[in-house]
Amino acid sequence: MSGTLYGLGVGPGDPELMTLKALRLLRAAPVLAYPAPEHGDSLVRRIVAPHLPGGQHEVAIRMPLVAERFPAQAVYDRAAHELSVHLRAGRDVAALCEGDPFFYGSFMYLFARLSAQFPVEVIPGVSSLTACAAALGAPLVARNDVLAVIPAPLPEAALRARLDGVDAAAIVKVGQHLAKVRRVLAACGLMAEARYVEHATMADQRIVPLAAVADDAAPYFSMILVHRRGAAWR
Amino acid sequence: MSGTLYGLGVGPGDPELMTLKALRLLRAAPVLAYPAPEHGDSLVRRIVAPHLPGGQHEVAIRMPLVAERFPAQAVYDRAAHELSVHLRAGRDVAALCEGDPFFYGSFMYLFARLSAQFPVEVIPGVSSLTACAAALGAPLVARNDVLAVIPAPLPEAALRARLDGVDAAAIVKVGQHLAKVRRVLAACGLMAEARYVEHATMADQRIVPLAAVADDAAPYFSMILVHRRGAAWR
Repeated sequence: MSGTLYGLGVGPGDPELMTLKALRLLRAAPVLAYPAPEHGDSLVRRIVAPHLPGGQHEVAIRMPLVAERFPAQAVYDRAAHELSVHLRAGRDVAALCEGDPFFYGSFMYLFARLSAQFPVEVIPGVSSLTACAAALGAPLVARNDVLAVIPAPLPEAALRARLDGVDAAAIVKVGQHLAKVRRVLAACGLMAEARYVEHATMADQRIVPLAAVADDAAPYFSMILVHRRGAAWR
Repeated sequence: MSGTLYGLGVGPGDPELMTLKALRLLRAAPVLAYPAPEHGDSLVRRIVAPHLPGGQHEVAIRMPLVAERFPAQAVYDRAAHELSVHLRAGRDVAALCEGDPFFYGSFMYLFARLSAQFPVEVIPGVSSLTACAAALGAPLVARNDVLAVIPAPLPEAALRARLDGVDAAAIVKVGQHLAKVRRVLAACGLMAEARYVEHATMADQRIVPLAAVADDAAPYFSMILVHRRGAAWR
């Protein structure tokens, strides 16, 4: 009997925003796997740290900095091989994912490599999308609102096209693309309705007016929420 | 000192998909409020039932059936007044919300009425969006995918326009609109890439091919997920 690969959504950052189910599976798994930078601490490992019982085998999937966004396939090939040894030996593996595993999560790369051979279960988590809305105190969508989730790295024309006609938008992965996103929002007449948050629910959460963020000062974990009516309940 | 109104996201249905934070606040609140049908049980009350310590004051916000989707303002006016009495007396109120309070949640109607006068804190929850993706075992979005969340009650032309150009879509509130949604997906060449799920993570969760669901047999809590590439990791 092979082990099960669990994709554990651990939520947006606050360790208390983990689900009871993720907590139970986290503590029970003999093997943990998580993404980590080339050197230093894993963010997702830090989120679950207060909950770890100790004594678990840990596999840090270390990503060279240059490949951080579109991960080097070789890194995941190697990680999948290492995890498959545990799974084949009957050991469950909990792959830790910030937010939700299937919402822009790097878990996808393990899923693509292992789901044909091993049982996989995904535990949904609180995503950054609703965590940011809660942090901002701003309802995201109501009634028959259409919401678009748009990654900021897209070209300017694509961003404009995707914003057209939607009621609400979440622009994710802002990072170094802030100047471009601001230009697009201004061109669409949406600057006044845009709200910016970084590191939602983490200890270093920061909410400032979008106009007050320097072009080069937005971290990767930042998001801009926009609602055409100004607020979803209007 | 007035009490705090908590908007508690309790997740998509499985009581184990509540967060630790929602659980703590649920148990500590002297007053609970939740939507309920005109007669009979509240769904969200049922989700949290296994976690209730007993002895809490409960306010069921009962909605006449005809107004279920666009709630009668008078019902929320009355509920807000009733809750304001508790808040003014210094008692915290936990308003229970399926999924996430700010993601198509009826919490918005309380928020609109009470957030100017009382402290409000929203606890994000696992939304139906990622719960459905997990139930289907289908990654929702990866890399720079654009996702549209589209309510099925919209007119046919609007559904087509909103599907145009996106990588992935979640069509929510399917209910009685299934025939129309199927026509639109077929016209967009997306029927083969569409997956259907109802009551995700609940005891009566059902996953069937979209073609196998009768036109009049989709419940309100059903969702269709579509990915243009067939799957997000391709």
